[in-house]
Parts: sequence; structure tokens; C-alpha cells
Amino acid sequence: MTNRCGASVKGHNPKPMTVVEPSDLSSGRNPLGHTIELGRERPIQLDCGVELGPVTVAYQTYGTLNADRSNAILICHALTGDQYVADPHPITGKPGWWSQLVGPGRVFDTDRYFLVCSNVLGGCMGTTGPRDINPATGKPWGVTFPVITIGDMVQVQARLIDALGIDQLFCVVGGSMGGMQVLEWCASFPERVFSAIPIATAARHSAQNIAFNEVGRQAITTDPDWFGGDYASHDAKPVRGLAVARMAAHITYLSEAALHRKFGRNLQGRQGFSYGFEADFQVESYLRHQGSTFVERFDANSYLYITRAMDYFDLAAERDGGLADAFKGIKTRFCVISFSSDWLFPTSESRAVVHALNAVAANVSFVEITSDKGHDAFLLDEPELHATLTGFLNGAAEHRGLPRGNKPEGGR
Amino acid sequence: MTNRCGASVKGHNPKPMTVVEPSDLSSGRNPLGHTIELGRERPIQLDCGVELGPVTVAYQTYGTLNADRSNAILICHALTGDQYVADPHPITGKPGWWSQLVGPGRVFDTDRYFLVCSNVLGGCMGTTGPRDINPATGKPWGVTFPVITIGDMVQVQARLIDALGIDQLFCVVGGSMGGMQVLEWCASFPERVFSAIPIATAARHSAQNIAFNEVGRQAITTDPDWFGGDYASHDAKPVRGLAVARMAAHITYLSEAALHRKFGRNLQGRQGFSYGFEADFQVESYLRHQGSTFVERFDANSYLYITRAMDYFDLAAERDGGLADAFKGIKTRFCVISFSSDWLFPTSESRAVVHALNAVAANVSFVEITSDKGHDAFLLDEPELHATLTGFLNGAAEHRGLPRGNKPEGGR
Repeated sequence: MTNRCGASVKGHNPKPMTVVEPSDLSSGRNPLGHTIELGRERPIQLDCGVELGPVTVAYQTYGTLNADRSNAILICHALTGDQYVADPHPITGKPGWWSQLVGPGRVFDTDRYFLVCSNVLGGCMGTTGPRDINPATGKPWGVTFPVITIGDMVQVQARLIDALGIDQLFCVVGGSMGGMQVLEWCASFPERVFSAIPIATAARHSAQNIAFNEVGRQAITTDPDWFGGDYASHDAKPVRGLAVARMAAHITYLSEAALHRKFGRNLQGRQGFSYGFEADFQVESYLRHQGSTFVERFDANSYLYITRAMDYFDLAAERDGGLADAFKGIKTRFCVISFSSDWLFPTSESRAVVHALNAVAANVSFVEITSDKGHDAFLLDEPELHATLTGFLNGAAEHRGLPRGNKPEGGR
Repeated sequence: MTNRCGASVKGHNPKPMTVVEPSDLSSGRNPLGHTIELGRERPIQLDCGVELGPVTVAYQTYGTLNADRSNAILICHALTGDQYVADPHPITGKPGWWSQLVGPGRVFDTDRYFLVCSNVLGGCMGTTGPRDINPATGKPWGVTFPVITIGDMVQVQARLIDALGIDQLFCVVGGSMGGMQVLEWCASFPERVFSAIPIATAARHSAQNIAFNEVGRQAITTDPDWFGGDYASHDAKPVRGLAVARMAAHITYLSEAALHRKFGRNLQGRQGFSYGFEADFQVESYLRHQGSTFVERFDANSYLYITRAMDYFDLAAERDGGLADAFKGIKTRFCVISFSSDWLFPTSESRAVVHALNAVAANVSFVEITSDKGHDAFLLDEPELHATLTGFLNGAAEHRGLPRGNKPEGGR
């Protein structure tokens, strides 16, 4: 067969992997993990019509690929996530975003599975994005970087999986924008995905979510330090706009209940109101902190490109049909997960995916996890999420004929 | 009795009204309605401890005050509203925000009632606010204007009502921040409020709402054209930040369902994606329009001050007790109204007010109106809202002994 990105995926030989030596992080290269160059001979055909290549992809792996290359799990990260699933973040030093789920005997059992997570196309943690140098000009791409889609991100991931010599992934899993990639994988490369776990996601971005993204983009592009996208040439960064974008987005990741429980109307280190515009309330202080720390680790133009990719995502429209058409004949085993208090990607969005899968008689289980933590729940220590993932992976592994883990099933 | 702002309200003589001649709108004065100077001899005692006076209050009236001054309805406007309830807005030329409710035979029947609406303290449509000149310096206040509260706004309104020679208002009504003022009136001046209609509001601002306000404030104060609040001296306006603040807030006024129905993922005047950062989607175009038109009519510093007043609002905490304590012994007749799809001021907030009123055996009816239009529903043509208001006002008017209107009850 020939897959969407034009690569022969059956019986191909893995390409040699290029591991770049540690270098300056600010160059966008990744000293702590792997990088690979893809598409030099055969550029990536982007949805916008541009041919892009070569591209560098930065990725992390955990565990060991088994002899028949059947135990690989691709983890797809969210908007502001990255490949540091279970390593300390090289800039912030914080633990990886799913580090509590990765390890021997854990949900993603590194004794059983080979985990791969790559920074998305357009990102700023080592994979080619607008911060990188355009070889044609010798200058940073900025907003001359082509606009990318979730489909383009997945195409690049598929090239990486080709290069790793993996025909079929045991599982593709991710939350939020990561879940969009999961769905895109299933629609574009159904035979390459044995099982799939889209979490807290949707098959198309809603008007409200586009609206919130647009607020963030406007905050960035109206910051004078954005310089029409060319801030790199002006030794500047639109940190004020990017911080505001992050603050607005961050509210959407939480629930009203979670904000009330965490902060309520508590004051920040004071007995009464300041009657000024300092951060009187803890929730203000928290948001400001979210904004100011985010700008240290994220590129403003990447934020524009990745939010745009999310807005463009509409799996049914991509295929000129109903959502069910995107999944026709699929053999992948699905576990769709949503959270009851998630208002950014509400359960109704997951249910629409489940209905489409049911309409093509796909193998799908669906769990709405009761949580008051909002969209962020997929990143938090949610026992029911962990139990659901473990149970589904164990069942899928049995069907795939993978050996059982050393630890008792269901064990953390 | 002596009211909260220190004025004797029983048997006082109305002060002479100062009607300012039409002048330049940009001076913040109001050529189309009334203005009055208050507090020259007895300054307003603000909650922050500052004595402010004199202050100018700009207001509109509709209908005629009856002989025993018993038919006055005070309408309280929301965050970005103003006193132009039923007149074309002097800057935008758009109809007043509740114009469909005001007129002979309408909900607020100008044949029966005398309507008053004043621009809030801290506003920018004629009432003293940060855009005005500080008499002590001869320069605009900017952020040297004292931080104000909902209580301060209501104090100033009470002075206006004194000046109009009205002991007791037949009704105080308002939505959103207007509803906060309604509740504050009932807690501060219970004997001056015969009936009260708090709509789509809360007795305290939630953590989530403080968070959204803080995003807006950060957007404004990080705009270099804000100049530390002193943009007036720099012949500048932080229009970019203010537009972003408005865009973020505007999303919260709508519901996901309303956005989906109005815009969905429809493209704006194009067949396919631009693969750029123009407003591809109608919802983006709409939001940008909301931002760009808002900055023409609103002052950025007023936005800071008024959002701060909302954040500080907590009727129970103001009185060191439970919410019910704020209403102890009240004789006011209440009609509390919420909208089912309002997630900014959800029904649970109105229910908390109703529970507090029930706990003190107050006279209260409560209506949750089924609507998918979100918080904005209180400003829209919602037949059930209009019917509820008409019915409640008719009943209250009967109890107050006001003559029946010329039109059949329940008409329009």
C-alpha cells in the first residue's frame, strides 16, 4: 500500500536515524533527545500546497521496540505540549507532562511498550517550525512559514514512524490537540493503527474554540514586539501578547468548579483589598504566573501556527462527507475518553466521534470520566483515567498478542 | 433615617438639577441628556477611604414622575453599558440597549413609569471617571482615580435619586453588573426599594469571572499605548489591548450553542481556507469587529476600574456574614431571573441569591428562562424575559397602588 504521504509502508527498510549532538537549545534543537531529518529527497506535501523539506523532527522514546516492532505507542502532544512526556523539561526543569503515566509497571509500561513522542511540525522544541531558519533565505521563517494542518503534523509523524521501521503502531494516544492527531491518524492511516485513544478532543474545532484561539492570536499579533512576525530580526519577543494569549487559554483548560475550589475569592498574601490593580486575588496571581512562565518556553509564532492548525481541523469536511465516512472499514480498536467538566472539548464532541464510529460498526468503547477538573484533567492525576487507559491497553495488547507485563494487570 | 451615603432621605427637598449645555462629547460630557453635579459640599465617601467630590453624573430619563413620586424605576447598566437605554447611542448611533423594552405600552411603560438610568461612577459616558480632569491637578485622573466598588456606584445613584426628590424607587432593575447594583441597593437601602429585579447576576464575582476580567486588564495594561494609565498625556489610546479585552469578554457573553448557530465553522466570504492568518472564519471576523468598534466608544481605564469593581463585589463579605444577613428584614418584592445557557452568571448564582432571600422570608419569585443565547440573552429580544418583567411589574404596581396602564395588562 501507499500511504497518504506517498511513502511505501509495507516492507520498507527503516531509514538511518540522524542523532544530532547536543547544541544550543535556543537554536530550537534538542540536546536531550533524538532528532531526525526527513523529507530531503521527498518533501512533505502540505495541505496548503507547499512542498516542505527537509524537516527536522525532535522526538523522545521510552522503552524498547520489540523484535517484530509491534509494541510501539505513539503519544501525540497538545497545543503547548512537547515530546518531553516523561523527562524533565529542558527549559523549565519540570517533570514531563505525563511522567506519572510512564515507567515500568505504569500505565504506559516501559517494560512492555516502546513509546514515541515527537514535537509537532510547526512547534518550537526542535521540530521544524517558524522559529527555524528557512534554508532558502538564511533567515528565520517567521510568518513566511507555510500554514500547517493537523493532517500535515500526522504526515510528518508517519514519516518518523517509517524511519523507525514500524509498520503498524500498537496504539496512538493523545489528549486535546493530541486527540485530533489520533483521529487524523485513524482516518489517514487506518491500517497502521491497531488501537487508538483520543482523549478530551473533537473531530472538528468548534466556533467557540476558534474564537478563543483568535483572541490569543490577536493578543500576539497586536503586540508591537511581534514586528509582523519578524521579531527575530528585531531582537524582540512579543512576550506581553503571548502571555495574555496563554492566560485567556488557561482559563478554558480549567472548570469553574476547579477555579472555585483552588482559589475561590481568596486574596494573595493580604488581608484586604489593595484598591489598586495589583493581583489582589490568588486567581489573578496564578494567571499572571501562567502567562509569564509560558513565554520562557514557547515561541509566539508557533502559537499562531498551531492554533491555526487546530481551527482548520474538521475531519468530516476534509473528506467531503459525514464523519462516519472518515472511518469506513476501520479495524482499529478505539477507546474514546472525555471528562464531565471539560467545556473546551465537551463530552458531546466525543460522543459525536463515537456515533460516527458506531455507524461504521467500529470497535469502540467510550468513557466519560466524572471529574470537576475541566479539560486539564487529562494531564492530572486522575485515577479513573489511569485505570481506563491501563484496562484498554491490556485488552488491546492481548488481542495484538503482546506478552503480558511483569506486574499484575491493573497495577499502577 | 440616614442612608449609607449620609444623606437624609425622608422629607428632604429635591436639589436643583444642573443641566449642562451640549458640549464636546470627547470631553466626556453628555449633550443628549442630563448631567448633575453631586457631592460638592458633602463628598462621596468611597469604600477605599477616599472622599470624592464633586462628581458629575450623566443620566437619561423616560416617562414622567408622578405627583407622589412613587412610579420611578432605576435601570442599572452593565459593564460596558450606559445611560442610553432607549436613545440612539451618541457615538455609535445604534439604538439604546433596551430600547425595545421602553415606550408606551411596553415592558417599561413610559405611560406609567418614570425611568432613570445613570452612567456609573468610573464610567466614560459623562459620569465622573478616570478620563475626567482631576480638579486638584488639572490633568486627567488616569489611574490616580480612586478604585471604586459597586457600593460606591450605588451610593452615587442614591445621591442622584435624592436629588430627583424620590424617597423610594418603585423598582430597581438591571442585568449582569446592573444586577449587582440591584442587589447592592437592596442591601444598602432596603427601604428605598419597593421591588427589585436582578437579572443574570450574582451576589459575588466568581473566580472564573475574576480570571476573565484579569485577562482583559492585562491586555490593556501591557499595551505600550497604555503608558502606565497616562495615555491621555501621550495623545495615545491602548486600542489594541482594549480590543483584545473586549474580544475575550465577548465570548463569555455568548453560549457555545449560540456561536455554533450563528457562525459554526462558516468561512467569511471565501470558498476555502486562506492558509494564512486573515479572518477565514465568520466567528473571527465577528470578534474582530466587536473589538474594533468597542474601542471607539469606551475608555480603557474605565474598563479597568469597572471590571475591578465587579471583582471586588461580594455582598456577604461586605457585611461580614452570610448572604442572608445582607437582606435581613427586607420588605422589597424580588423577581430573580437567570438564563439556562448563561455560563458567566449561571443559574446557580441566582439560586444562591434566592436561597438567601428565602432564608429571611423575603418576597421572592425566581425564573430561569430557557434560552440558548447565553449571558447576552438579557439584552436580546427574549419573549419570556419580556413577559416575566411585565407580569412582575404589573403585580408590583398593583401592590404599590399605581394606576393601571392604558393598554391591557400583559400587552407587549
